[in-house]
Amino acid sequence: MPLRPSQTTSVQRFNGNASSTDDDTLAVEEPLEIRVEGRSIALTMRTPGHDEELATGFLFTEGVLRSAADLLDLDVCSANDGGPGNVINVRLRDPAAVDLDKLSRHIFTASSCGLCGKATIESVRRSNNAHSPVGRASRPTTPATLLTLPDRLHAAQSTFRATGGLHAAALFDPTTGDLLATREDVGRHNAVDKVIGRALLDRRPDLATLGLLVSGRIAFEIMQKADAAALPLVVGFSAPTSLAVDFARESGQTLIGFLRADRFNLYAGQLA
Amino acid sequence: MPLRPSQTTSVQRFNGNASSTDDDTLAVEEPLEIRVEGRSIALTMRTPGHDEELATGFLFTEGVLRSAADLLDLDVCSANDGGPGNVINVRLRDPAAVDLDKLSRHIFTASSCGLCGKATIESVRRSNNAHSPVGRASRPTTPATLLTLPDRLHAAQSTFRATGGLHAAALFDPTTGDLLATREDVGRHNAVDKVIGRALLDRRPDLATLGLLVSGRIAFEIMQKADAAALPLVVGFSAPTSLAVDFARESGQTLIGFLRADRFNLYAGQLA
Repeated sequence: MPLRPSQTTSVQRFNGNASSTDDDTLAVEEPLEIRVEGRSIALTMRTPGHDEELATGFLFTEGVLRSAADLLDLDVCSANDGGPGNVINVRLRDPAAVDLDKLSRHIFTASSCGLCGKATIESVRRSNNAHSPVGRASRPTTPATLLTLPDRLHAAQSTFRATGGLHAAALFDPTTGDLLATREDVGRHNAVDKVIGRALLDRRPDLATLGLLVSGRIAFEIMQKADAAALPLVVGFSAPTSLAVDFARESGQTLIGFLRADRFNLYAGQLA
Repeated sequence: MPLRPSQTTSVQRFNGNASSTDDDTLAVEEPLEIRVEGRSIALTMRTPGHDEELATGFLFTEGVLRSAADLLDLDVCSANDGGPGNVINVRLRDPAAVDLDKLSRHIFTASSCGLCGKATIESVRRSNNAHSPVGRASRPTTPATLLTLPDRLHAAQSTFRATGGLHAAALFDPTTGDLLATREDVGRHNAVDKVIGRALLDRRPDLATLGLLVSGRIAFEIMQKADAAALPLVVGFSAPTSLAVDFARESGQTLIGFLRADRFNLYAGQLA
């Protein structure tokens, strides 16, 4: 499959209690592994395209390149279909001048030139496996219950409206719609970690039956964290990425996006 | 200074060509260093508060903790004022059972218990120093020119309106308002890296006189990348964090937030 910035997927649109099947356009999210002189130094989830720019800008803003003159060439691996792939190798005019150790980042897959979103999902799901059996279901829920969530989250949020700068996450009971913990943070992954951490510190035995509500976009990392906690249902107010939808379908999670007071889109799974 | 989720700063509000000084509330962004058994394994920029939850949830979703039973205790370092600080140490019941090597992340400061946003800024600015002298100015600009940017960016964006899932970044000429490169990405730091990378690949000699425009929130990482590229002017459509504002003031950058067609807020620096 060639790497494009957006792709089409089927979605079930709910308007109140009515629903219809439709097509929806998703922003494509795929991993890019950045290598310097063949050594893997970063893995970032990105929109495919302009990867030479991304690698160059990343290495410059991280201090590896001092100027364009440090660059010898950039080589993008080919994907199976012959199109551009998800690994880019950067060669430097003077490799000895660079200390790559300070750049080592969290690489969560032993990646090859065949690195792709699917392989990334498989790798993450393998390492999450102890927590997250495929085929789990949340407590039963209904469209009517889900449609109450925006009002509940807004009521629970205090800082957001004052600063306009925070993401919110909440754990909720899918049957009653009650919010069990709500946290805000400048980082959306932090807000998710906080509500999951709260449930662990409370020794909640029912974590794997709850839903996760997030205020912003739903990207791969959110689904990975929900999966690690065996959360079967993820609901957001904005768009999911392609990889978030693929991840949910692969892991048996239910994924809902664009939740408003009167409608939402079901991207994966079903309402229990 | 105690760590709170929001703080007040002075801001200059522009409405068309008129401006007034006012107070504004910012979401606080501060680093949290997560240690396991005294070993630093992650540094995340977060909203202070609920740090035990954040560390617990992070370690669980990253696979270090399998359940709350793995946790022995959590210890938050004290800040200078005796309040909670920015380092948390997690002790495990069975440290030998955990492979911490897979978790090593990019730690950009040799952090101590005194880790704070100010130290983080100093550390980043030290490593950026070759690129970014304090006191630089962009080409001259005016409120009228800045107010044209939202329309220009919307016109340049193609994928965003279709998917609702992308961040945009652009380099622009502060004097004319022309957008020189526009990129969209699921990650806002990627969109910024791409436009900076484009300028490098084009060997633009005038990078240090341009402005950076971003569609979303302005957090520390965006300012750090702009600073590494010696970009003197950063403009966003949404809120900056406390650390972004502190960073801009420290590094001599001009920072504008909440840009609309008729108004904006000036958080740091001045219009050249």
